[in-house]
Amino acid sequence: MGKKSLAIGIDIGGTNTVFGFVNKEGEIICEASITTCAEKDAEQLFERLFTEIDKFFAKYKNDFKLIGVGIGAPNANYYKGTIEAPPNLNWGIVNVFDIVKRYSSLPVILTNDANAAAIGEMTFGAAKGMKNFIEITLGTGLGSGIVLDGKLVYGQDGFAGEIGHTIMDPNGRKCGCGRKGCLETYASATGLKKTVVELAAINKYKSKLCNKSFEELTAKEIAIAAKEGDRLALDAFDFTAKMLGLRLADSVAYLNPEAIILFGGLVLAGELLLHPTKKYMEKYLLNIFKNKVKLLPSELLASNAAILGASALVWNQLKG
Amino acid sequence: MGKKSLAIGIDIGGTNTVFGFVNKEGEIICEASITTCAEKDAEQLFERLFTEIDKFFAKYKNDFKLIGVGIGAPNANYYKGTIEAPPNLNWGIVNVFDIVKRYSSLPVILTNDANAAAIGEMTFGAAKGMKNFIEITLGTGLGSGIVLDGKLVYGQDGFAGEIGHTIMDPNGRKCGCGRKGCLETYASATGLKKTVVELAAINKYKSKLCNKSFEELTAKEIAIAAKEGDRLALDAFDFTAKMLGLRLADSVAYLNPEAIILFGGLVLAGELLLHPTKKYMEKYLLNIFKNKVKLLPSELLASNAAILGASALVWNQLKG
Repeated sequence: MGKKSLAIGIDIGGTNTVFGFVNKEGEIICEASITTCAEKDAEQLFERLFTEIDKFFAKYKNDFKLIGVGIGAPNANYYKGTIEAPPNLNWGIVNVFDIVKRYSSLPVILTNDANAAAIGEMTFGAAKGMKNFIEITLGTGLGSGIVLDGKLVYGQDGFAGEIGHTIMDPNGRKCGCGRKGCLETYASATGLKKTVVELAAINKYKSKLCNKSFEELTAKEIAIAAKEGDRLALDAFDFTAKMLGLRLADSVAYLNPEAIILFGGLVLAGELLLHPTKKYMEKYLLNIFKNKVKLLPSELLASNAAILGASALVWNQLKG
Repeated sequence: MGKKSLAIGIDIGGTNTVFGFVNKEGEIICEASITTCAEKDAEQLFERLFTEIDKFFAKYKNDFKLIGVGIGAPNANYYKGTIEAPPNLNWGIVNVFDIVKRYSSLPVILTNDANAAAIGEMTFGAAKGMKNFIEITLGTGLGSGIVLDGKLVYGQDGFAGEIGHTIMDPNGRKCGCGRKGCLETYASATGLKKTVVELAAINKYKSKLCNKSFEELTAKEIAIAAKEGDRLALDAFDFTAKMLGLRLADSVAYLNPEAIILFGGLVLAGELLLHPTKKYMEKYLLNIFKNKVKLLPSELLASNAAILGASALVWNQLKG
């Protein structure tokens, strides 16, 4: 009997880099994590990474064969194979294809983490069988991946899908990108915290959240407060949902997707966010789209989504 | 020698329906127009239309053969072959595929007028050779067609590309779609006229446009006034360009196109609109996109763009 195939999924983060061996069914056979050492160069990371991968694979090599390497990373470019000066890695512009070649002859597919999440969702999660959907990753910021006709949209230079950096208000909140009023300054964990501080400054609330600074607040405690009925927390979720729902309605007008799937830390708040976002999205949808677009939570577990998404790059490429 | 191929291009409008025979090079061999009689049903239009087409084609049939029918129409659905209750036609929902079958055995391709313009631009105009671009049609309203990887984006139900109905301001101007603040209430001939009236009410201008009502104003005279240096007209163009430029910057974040192409009546104002729109688009673009996206005027002549666009549906389909 032939050996079974496994894809390597790698997710490069500012603190840790995780990797795993994933089969076609989306089962992670083995996973591990190493520190990224973001202050050093990229070369050292990949050297350590492939040493670990070889070591871990040793015990599987009699039964399995590796078929490709999928990598999710911030500021990654699918076409060029580069990671371009991500804010949390001290790398400059790095060509991942060139570096990986020194350690492995396997085909390498690289994309940014939000796109990897979308491919992961289509291959193993809530978007299985879907041809047209948008994956929104709500974490510290807001990432997005657009799938049309079963393919990820990369656009002319590989940078499509920056919905987090569409502008809600040109005079709005300052964004990390240097501009003002981007969606991710409102609809993200950071945005939710900002909204709590802003609302507490404008209105009178009896809420324990009023005593906290932006730095002290966490999205998790806002969610817990909201579940306990805290008015300030509930209003903050409502405003977040309003901004997100409005932009999702616009996204439907652009792309007419079958579904929009919400992924990431902030979605763990569950119905707290999903319900009002759905309400506002429907409110702002053009008539022909009303009650037709599904708004779904991700079916990828947050704990292994990064590895699954990265490995799905390989499985999805082979399929197409 | 074999007969040369011609595609039939048909554009159905509220007042007139135009048709023509178009060769692969985008030359219109023959064109004509009949009244749509929009108050009557669709059947009578197609009956008269194909009677005319047969009559006109009689003199070409020794040298040419017809290979397909491309139809551009408001509210047309590419997948279903339907025209669905357009505001300016008293039709309800009509299945064009079924009706045309009675008069012709040629393959029929139907899409809305904005999508037809995009395909026309790609086949015969400024987007020749491009794989990723957005066509914006600025007329009474704002239509758009999105091309990615050389294919028009239809989305799940055939209604993608409604950029004119993305929302600039949820409390903004009332739109014909029943909602508020859609892009087309600002960036269109109608929007430009509204802006003149609004600015004249807010500020003090010495302008002959101040004496005109919304009904009396035309986009053309606003353009003429602007060219003569009229402050009110110039401010109105600037505001129109600001709203359009902002949304085009967002569109780039979604789709990372190579170019955005402006088509339609309002673009005849030339640099009056193009120059400030480019300025605002660049201002609002995310850094990675700055100075990379072309903003171009259409190269389709307004007078025959509808026929070219509709016929291009046939030529483009054959190619793919």
